[in-house]
Amino acid sequence: MLIFRYKMRKCVVYGGCGGLGREIVNYLKIKGVWTLSVDIGSNDAADANVLVSLTDGWTAQEKNVLSAIGVVLKGEKLDGVINVAGGWAGGNTVDPDWVKNADLMWKQSVWSSSIAASIAAHHLKTEGLLVLPGARPATGGTPGMMGYGMAKAAIHQLVKSLGSECSGLPSGACALGILPVTLDTPMNRKFMPDADTSTWTPLTEVARILNNWLENRERPSSGSLVAMLTEKGNTFLLLEN
Amino acid sequence: MLIFRYKMRKCVVYGGCGGLGREIVNYLKIKGVWTLSVDIGSNDAADANVLVSLTDGWTAQEKNVLSAIGVVLKGEKLDGVINVAGGWAGGNTVDPDWVKNADLMWKQSVWSSSIAASIAAHHLKTEGLLVLPGARPATGGTPGMMGYGMAKAAIHQLVKSLGSECSGLPSGACALGILPVTLDTPMNRKFMPDADTSTWTPLTEVARILNNWLENRERPSSGSLVAMLTEKGNTFLLLEN
Repeated sequence: MLIFRYKMRKCVVYGGCGGLGREIVNYLKIKGVWTLSVDIGSNDAADANVLVSLTDGWTAQEKNVLSAIGVVLKGEKLDGVINVAGGWAGGNTVDPDWVKNADLMWKQSVWSSSIAASIAAHHLKTEGLLVLPGARPATGGTPGMMGYGMAKAAIHQLVKSLGSECSGLPSGACALGILPVTLDTPMNRKFMPDADTSTWTPLTEVARILNNWLENRERPSSGSLVAMLTEKGNTFLLLEN
Repeated sequence: MLIFRYKMRKCVVYGGCGGLGREIVNYLKIKGVWTLSVDIGSNDAADANVLVSLTDGWTAQEKNVLSAIGVVLKGEKLDGVINVAGGWAGGNTVDPDWVKNADLMWKQSVWSSSIAASIAAHHLKTEGLLVLPGARPATGGTPGMMGYGMAKAAIHQLVKSLGSECSGLPSGACALGILPVTLDTPMNRKFMPDADTSTWTPLTEVARILNNWLENRERPSSGSLVAMLTEKGNTFLLLEN
């Protein structure tokens, strides 16, 4: 008798309670992936949850998240770590809140990305996937959203470091940055009611692409920054570096 | 009778107590520039000092530094704001201290750079100069110094934002990033005793170039990232973007 021992893929979705995060958790679940959401709240659709405390500093968040994930995984390895945490805030140098906003952007996007990188370094399988959230506009100047641009540029550079030799990631691991322009989220529809949404990237497209990479299909080389462009409702990928 | 009313140039040197900062203050002083050092300690060679408190957060540092500079300047405008604050720390994703080091790099380099940008937005003259401290290695991946690379990449992107329309800087202002490889500092000589120092950039060369720009000579266009390369003791500049 032939026995198939099917082993479920395992994936951390950092920011698993956000608009994109929930979509990814739902999509991966349909594909039979075991998902662990890391966020400030719980996503009941995920198989496990690790909560981040906003009162913790950067190093404490890293320590506590790594420790909690270790307890959940019990030595099992992950196929993927996908970070989609982060938000948006604007401001140029004369906006009285620009530094406050830059601080928020850094904490949401860069703290989460560096902790996701640590999770990958400690718990990812050989040839596992690590995805971090970049933004296409930050490949140039972003005078109307200076803090956002700095945070995203830091993530882009972190992806390049993670794709280099001796990054600490397991052998054959693939670190990618996704660089959307505008995602088709309920929040964006609410705040930009008159925009041309045919250029917005649907969340299910992002989830589909991420699942492809998770299944080791159509992966760009590690360290790549992958722009996600949508025209007339069709999404295509473009390597930035 | 012809009366020359000579007005001293005025320049803020952020990080005016560091190795490079002291060199710049001394150089500008010889050139007759009035200098204001911003740092955690005083530089007695400067004409004025504003102290930064390390117990303050990012927004409090910005508020307190802006306020103190306003008191010193009494409505006078600056010809330049030069930030050379920052340090170095290494680590890849498996280094237990990498996030702690990334946090330090962010605070030293990016907090100071964003506050320098705010100073420029509020106190710089038309066609004034703003210089921020980048690093050439961070134009690619830096797996052995991940936090340092992220911080410097954020500064590079901030320079691009500051060089764009509607950054908040005064009309005609010139924002530049300097991207050295290795500076010839006493610390680097101490920690890399066997290195080839003929490729290290002398601090006086950096000060000379900065003073040129301050005097509105040989300025690259605003938003430029200017690599400082030294070969056989000769330093030359290369535009990165």
